[in-house]
Amino acid sequence: MIRRLLVCNAIAVVLVSAQIPHRDAAVQLKNIGLTEMESYVLLHDLTTTVGQRFSGTPGYDKAVAWSQKKLKEAGADSVWLEPVIIPQWVRGKNEKAVMSSRGKSVPLSICALGPSVATPYNGLTATVIEVHSLEEAAQLGEKAKGKIIFYNRPFDKTIVNTFEAYGNAVDQRGRGAVVAAQQGAVGVLVRSMTTAIDDYPHTGAMRYYDSIPKIPAAAISTAGAEKLSAALKSDPNLTVTMTLDCRFNGEVPSYNVIGQITGSEHPEQIVLIGAHLDSWDKGTGAHDDGAGVVHCIDALRLIKKLGTHPTRTIRCVLFANEENGIRGARAYAAGAMQSSDVHIAAIESDEGGFSPRGFGVTADSIQFRQIVSYTSLLEIVGADRITPGGGGVDIDQLKTKETVRIGLTPDNQRYFDLHHSDLDTIDKVHPRELQLGTIAVAILAWCLARDGI
Amino acid sequence: MIRRLLVCNAIAVVLVSAQIPHRDAAVQLKNIGLTEMESYVLLHDLTTTVGQRFSGTPGYDKAVAWSQKKLKEAGADSVWLEPVIIPQWVRGKNEKAVMSSRGKSVPLSICALGPSVATPYNGLTATVIEVHSLEEAAQLGEKAKGKIIFYNRPFDKTIVNTFEAYGNAVDQRGRGAVVAAQQGAVGVLVRSMTTAIDDYPHTGAMRYYDSIPKIPAAAISTAGAEKLSAALKSDPNLTVTMTLDCRFNGEVPSYNVIGQITGSEHPEQIVLIGAHLDSWDKGTGAHDDGAGVVHCIDALRLIKKLGTHPTRTIRCVLFANEENGIRGARAYAAGAMQSSDVHIAAIESDEGGFSPRGFGVTADSIQFRQIVSYTSLLEIVGADRITPGGGGVDIDQLKTKETVRIGLTPDNQRYFDLHHSDLDTIDKVHPRELQLGTIAVAILAWCLARDGI
Repeated sequence: MIRRLLVCNAIAVVLVSAQIPHRDAAVQLKNIGLTEMESYVLLHDLTTTVGQRFSGTPGYDKAVAWSQKKLKEAGADSVWLEPVIIPQWVRGKNEKAVMSSRGKSVPLSICALGPSVATPYNGLTATVIEVHSLEEAAQLGEKAKGKIIFYNRPFDKTIVNTFEAYGNAVDQRGRGAVVAAQQGAVGVLVRSMTTAIDDYPHTGAMRYYDSIPKIPAAAISTAGAEKLSAALKSDPNLTVTMTLDCRFNGEVPSYNVIGQITGSEHPEQIVLIGAHLDSWDKGTGAHDDGAGVVHCIDALRLIKKLGTHPTRTIRCVLFANEENGIRGARAYAAGAMQSSDVHIAAIESDEGGFSPRGFGVTADSIQFRQIVSYTSLLEIVGADRITPGGGGVDIDQLKTKETVRIGLTPDNQRYFDLHHSDLDTIDKVHPRELQLGTIAVAILAWCLARDGI
Repeated sequence: MIRRLLVCNAIAVVLVSAQIPHRDAAVQLKNIGLTEMESYVLLHDLTTTVGQRFSGTPGYDKAVAWSQKKLKEAGADSVWLEPVIIPQWVRGKNEKAVMSSRGKSVPLSICALGPSVATPYNGLTATVIEVHSLEEAAQLGEKAKGKIIFYNRPFDKTIVNTFEAYGNAVDQRGRGAVVAAQQGAVGVLVRSMTTAIDDYPHTGAMRYYDSIPKIPAAAISTAGAEKLSAALKSDPNLTVTMTLDCRFNGEVPSYNVIGQITGSEHPEQIVLIGAHLDSWDKGTGAHDDGAGVVHCIDALRLIKKLGTHPTRTIRCVLFANEENGIRGARAYAAGAMQSSDVHIAAIESDEGGFSPRGFGVTADSIQFRQIVSYTSLLEIVGADRITPGGGGVDIDQLKTKETVRIGLTPDNQRYFDLHHSDLDTIDKVHPRELQLGTIAVAILAWCLARDGI
């Protein structure tokens, strides 16, 4: 009898959960979120008690433990770790550059790109050639031999969407060293990926190819880049001495962290909400991607708190090693391919914790229209700009599974001021802007788990 | 012959200007604006070389001279001053509060509201009654006699639009002293108008009525309000000593500053772009309303630089005394009523220099649809959310003229953190966010001057 009552209650709960109107759910998610303001509390904790959590560091291990605990506290039915092998690259402590011209020395603010090789212990000294594109570097030929190639193409300021401007400039960072090495250059300096002019270098990922010599590669602050460029105009023979003692230590075991509310009717249908748990080793990854991490954990908490158990599974995945390898997402996607579960949709938050403006959606036209039909709900938190195309580096690994891929798009004017630099800290995060992003993710995930797609 | 050529050239210019497609104009305004980034340069100059510019102070006079010069440099055909008589209220230097309970004294962070009267020289000491609404204060009766009434209703955090939350709370500041004095209270403390919890008091306007005793009125920081409220719970008999030495000095002459590009075909049809030139005497009015001032001056400059002379007049009006009297806007509206010119539309920027999200529009349905038809142009800078209702305190004085009234609506999550406090300074302004607001105003003003409405 007791058992039968429990079953009846369970059915009643399912019916109630099926009956709550979308708008009521959205308004309640908004009200709970803005009253409790938990996202900022979480992010403050992550960025101060854990801090930096670069792949392969003790900080990342602390972040794994922290997020397991927070997912449980958020009310996840189950929380687990997914093993993944990640690269371990270490910046080292000696990282500097000095420009020497006509007997005068001027320091330049630089930091190694990952996974740059080190310079000789006492630094690498060479004359410098400034270029503005990979193509220009590729045509240097003999002139590049023994030189430091200085990539100095700035963001196109007239592009309003800073991610687009970043996309247009970042080839210099990603492939600059390879192209320069092919011409015989001995090192590269790459203008930091930001519109701001200041003296903070912004690190980031670059690549080597086994067949091409590995030369040291560093980001130079935008102010430093302007200074170097001006100096080269008056003295093309100036030299730069750059010193890096970074090193690659091989591969080490690590984890994705996963927690979910298992669907009551279609547990095998998964709406993924994801972000990357690792940060760079600059700043404390408050916006990149601490904001995404707490967006997802707190969205799960809000949905749980709503009290209407979702019929489909809502799974929070905190990916390892997005910044310098994407190994976490690849491991997750490989596992997903072998599973009978279906990822019907995946929402990634990896564009910061600023006021949400909408979502970018990669889907077929019918699915896209379904997302657009949620506009009036997302408008409650100002996140109603639904644009075609979008996702994120981590969930994009799922693309062979025909998953609808969705990226949260916050206002992005401030993002690259901070990105991958010492400036990316909690004081740059506004509690309400962050919380609105969480609510936007929660509303959309709740709708998709409720309706399917 | 020369004269005829000039006339032909003038006609050619008009034809060219009439022919530039809307989209080309919008893209050019965006490109020039984001390349030159002049708005931040202007605002930096206004907030540092002029600084505070409270009504009736030398700072305001400096701002008048500064903006005349900048309007001329922006390319205005004509620049003039419109006389207006404004109140002169002076904060004084002695402004403090101390809470005393069981032998212990704790300072509270306060500042006078304008135009509060002073306390006695050695302060006003009284016990305190906490209330959460004017209605609650109005029902105190005898209990209020000789007391300080402490209005402590916070912003409703669940309201996403912070201007709406402000609107719901600000009656405490505006009418709190009058309602308290009617009950026999001797002073009021009003919780600062912000969602942030910090120790900065936020000043603002309140009113007295001649028939009701004028009692001292101050804003208390939100942290101070929380502290006082908690202390009252454990000791309802605690006292507060508040000291203010502010005073009202009568009325003084001042000016609105006006500059325009006179329309080539319909000079009498005016598209007004406006902001208020005065600030409070806290901070340097960077967002309130320095941002609006440079939005308007720089929008005029961008339109001039576009090289297509508008057929209708675009007039930039920088209003005096918005913060504590609205005298500038009333004088301007009175003049407009007597003129044969027609203000077909007025755009006000007085919600800060954050990323623009759209415009609020007060218009009939046909006019509203016309503004909506510009959505694809405004989307270029993310300012495409057109909502019914809107304008601004200054241009709302024009309402009897059947002018379409439009308010720029930037993202507003951060606005009240700074508003009317020492925090409203240039370091809180992001150059690109500010510039995008300018471009949004320029695009809309250009369209309205081109098409009429």
